[in-house]
Amino acid sequence: MVKSVAREPVPARRADAERNIAAILDAGMRLLGADPAASVADVAKAAGVGRVTLYGHFPSREALVDAVLDHAIGIADLALGGVDIDEQPAPEAVAALLRSSWQVLDRHRRLFLAADRVLPMERIREHHDVPLRRIERLIARGRDDGDFRTDLPLSWLVTTFFGVLHSAAQEVESGRLEQADVERVLVTTMLSLLCP
Amino acid sequence: MVKSVAREPVPARRADAERNIAAILDAGMRLLGADPAASVADVAKAAGVGRVTLYGHFPSREALVDAVLDHAIGIADLALGGVDIDEQPAPEAVAALLRSSWQVLDRHRRLFLAADRVLPMERIREHHDVPLRRIERLIARGRDDGDFRTDLPLSWLVTTFFGVLHSAAQEVESGRLEQADVERVLVTTMLSLLCP
Repeated sequence: MVKSVAREPVPARRADAERNIAAILDAGMRLLGADPAASVADVAKAAGVGRVTLYGHFPSREALVDAVLDHAIGIADLALGGVDIDEQPAPEAVAALLRSSWQVLDRHRRLFLAADRVLPMERIREHHDVPLRRIERLIARGRDDGDFRTDLPLSWLVTTFFGVLHSAAQEVESGRLEQADVERVLVTTMLSLLCP
Repeated sequence: MVKSVAREPVPARRADAERNIAAILDAGMRLLGADPAASVADVAKAAGVGRVTLYGHFPSREALVDAVLDHAIGIADLALGGVDIDEQPAPEAVAALLRSSWQVLDRHRRLFLAADRVLPMERIREHHDVPLRRIERLIARGRDDGDFRTDLPLSWLVTTFFGVLHSAAQEVESGRLEQADVERVLVTTMLSLLCP
């Protein structure tokens, strides 16, 4: 490769790159959230960058979806941090966390479906590491308090929390579950499973 | 395209095609079941057909994985048909069906992971239509008998059965769940959820 002589100082170019990446992630979240089949070209156009620039940061559609999912989960996790789960009994806290998690997931439902098309479930789960650790702490506390069962592995109960939430997204998208019924179904399911 | 004059009767060519497809599906089940990243070329070689022949029947890796999954589920469903679920109380029948479904899924675990990499979860679920209808009938019977809860939608309980089984496959693959503990975890989880 031919190295070009830098025409502007490095920090300025780095600031440009950061601005482009932020615009691409925001546009990706918006477009993929509206249509899981949105193309890389659509996202580049909405972000106001060229396709070459986009591919420079995200070499494939899969890499783009991966980064957009991570971005959306990071923002969602900041919002979920506002749910006070330490001040109430664990069962009430699980119900509150399920309801707020569902509202977040529902808003980003199509983005999750876009991710489900190109990323393995294990990778999608990895992106949820931070919110899953919050759920794990809460379920562990409920076990210590005697509210939750201890005959199933803690990691399995956390996986089930993650699983029922994402199943609900697919059930709503496929029309098998009424939007109005989701919060009741999620809370009933999870508490039936957690309480001995 | 230039039409060539048929040199052998149509039924013979059709029989060749069927033989090739059967060999491709069997090789696909074997290879993808051992390594979810197995390539189309590997499958063609193991099936004893050329890549052009394989692509003639399955135009992409995704189409191949899709067909192999369908083939495996068809065979598995025939095996599951041998579990007598009508002669025992519904909770015992659910436990028996979970155990045998797990044994089948565990044997095809890597094939399921290969499918999870290229097919959306909704598509994987569609392939399970026949076994899912069996589970639906069983849960409906348990509700009629007064053994299972009726405050959650039947379709949601069926989805949960499907979801916990596939979560278990991922938990085992990732090392978060011990192989020896799976059947107990699955049965305890599902019966906690189904019984009021």
